[in-house]
Amino acid sequence: MRILITAGGTTEAIDSVRGITNHSTGKLGAIIAECFAAKNHYVKFITSSHTILPSQNPNIHVSIITNTEQLLTILTSQLTTQTFDSVIHSMAVSDYTPVFTNSQEGFAIKLENKLKQGLSVNQAFTTITKSSKIFPVKKKISSTSENLIIILKRNSKVIQKIKKLQPQTLLVGFKLLVSVSKKELLTIARKSMKEAQADFFIANDLTEINEKKHHAYLLNNQNHLYQESFTKKEIATMLFGQIRKRIYQK
Amino acid sequence: MRILITAGGTTEAIDSVRGITNHSTGKLGAIIAECFAAKNHYVKFITSSHTILPSQNPNIHVSIITNTEQLLTILTSQLTTQTFDSVIHSMAVSDYTPVFTNSQEGFAIKLENKLKQGLSVNQAFTTITKSSKIFPVKKKISSTSENLIIILKRNSKVIQKIKKLQPQTLLVGFKLLVSVSKKELLTIARKSMKEAQADFFIANDLTEINEKKHHAYLLNNQNHLYQESFTKKEIATMLFGQIRKRIYQK
Repeated sequence: MRILITAGGTTEAIDSVRGITNHSTGKLGAIIAECFAAKNHYVKFITSSHTILPSQNPNIHVSIITNTEQLLTILTSQLTTQTFDSVIHSMAVSDYTPVFTNSQEGFAIKLENKLKQGLSVNQAFTTITKSSKIFPVKKKISSTSENLIIILKRNSKVIQKIKKLQPQTLLVGFKLLVSVSKKELLTIARKSMKEAQADFFIANDLTEINEKKHHAYLLNNQNHLYQESFTKKEIATMLFGQIRKRIYQK
Repeated sequence: MRILITAGGTTEAIDSVRGITNHSTGKLGAIIAECFAAKNHYVKFITSSHTILPSQNPNIHVSIITNTEQLLTILTSQLTTQTFDSVIHSMAVSDYTPVFTNSQEGFAIKLENKLKQGLSVNQAFTTITKSSKIFPVKKKISSTSENLIIILKRNSKVIQKIKKLQPQTLLVGFKLLVSVSKKELLTIARKSMKEAQADFFIANDLTEINEKKHHAYLLNNQNHLYQESFTKKEIATMLFGQIRKRIYQK
């Protein structure tokens, strides 16, 4: 099989030295990569810096990216030039990218001016954000102001582009929530699975993950059953089994 | 000698999975630690996760912290219970911590309400920020809104507390700027050195740092001379020489 795995988390720059980071150790992705590579399958592994890499294995081919834009670029190039049996998208991708920053006082002055022109507060926000200079700030934002305001714009969902780029690949998505009920977790994960046209989804809750355990549900797009795992290794094995089954059923 | 070194960069949480990070590999701090430890000096090494650690050496004692508050806690405990000949503070510390977040629409409604009460925009910002709930957000901020607003509050400067906690220690500070003239860099570094009551300051520009080179100026609080280095190893050696000289002159 040929598998593409994303792992780790993206960082969106605020300026030359600061960024908004989605924390992820990349450990689960690395273990999944090791599981496929150990059985001699080809693995393209896309991760961010400062994450755990899979053990060295000639079957694993690593690329490192930083932000959402770079992730989309490499995914587009990989998925339009090569065929993958499955894409396992475990990377924590930034939902928002900073597009504007200002001191509170500076922003207040701009806003007052827009309000005097008859705009609503919401319209004024939009106008100011749209007129903002190139972002991220090329230098380092000075820390002279007491309060700083950052406006972020929602990114398009990377996972929703994968099936558009390669419709026949088996897509595995991940939903990580924090301190929700099982029912809520599974409902939201099923919704995301549908929106991404994914074949499988791993649903997990941050409060059930630590160094030793990793409780997760594996959902599929064919019925309302799910499988459960309690460690990262178990998740990798469960995923491997399900992907192999679907691919050889094809 | 007994040396305390901070390295890496702090992260201030936005919610359970996102944070604002000051990027720093921690490499220079690690090389400085190795330089002192190799000559049998005691090194307390405080860093953040996902950074480069010094090579294992029984003289180096590592502690890992995440945010500015934790950095202050460990510095206070170390500097009030132990004596250090020098504190080399190379950690990139967050200037700002998120204190409020809302969707643009949600924030606009709150702001309109405050303006109707007769507040200025700036006053309204301050009132809304102060009335905000506990931060960071305990769950994961949902990505349903198109734009997100984050307000950050300036942190007190950690470096300015070090001499207050241990007045007799030799304090080394760092100033990293991006794409400025040599004159501007040295002027701003001297100003920061004075504000922190530091004994030495390393001034460097991000555009003059890469994997192979690291151009830096070492300033001191006794005259207007400076020393220059062009690699991380050179910086460590230069710093070691100057600290040893001052300490044995005492």
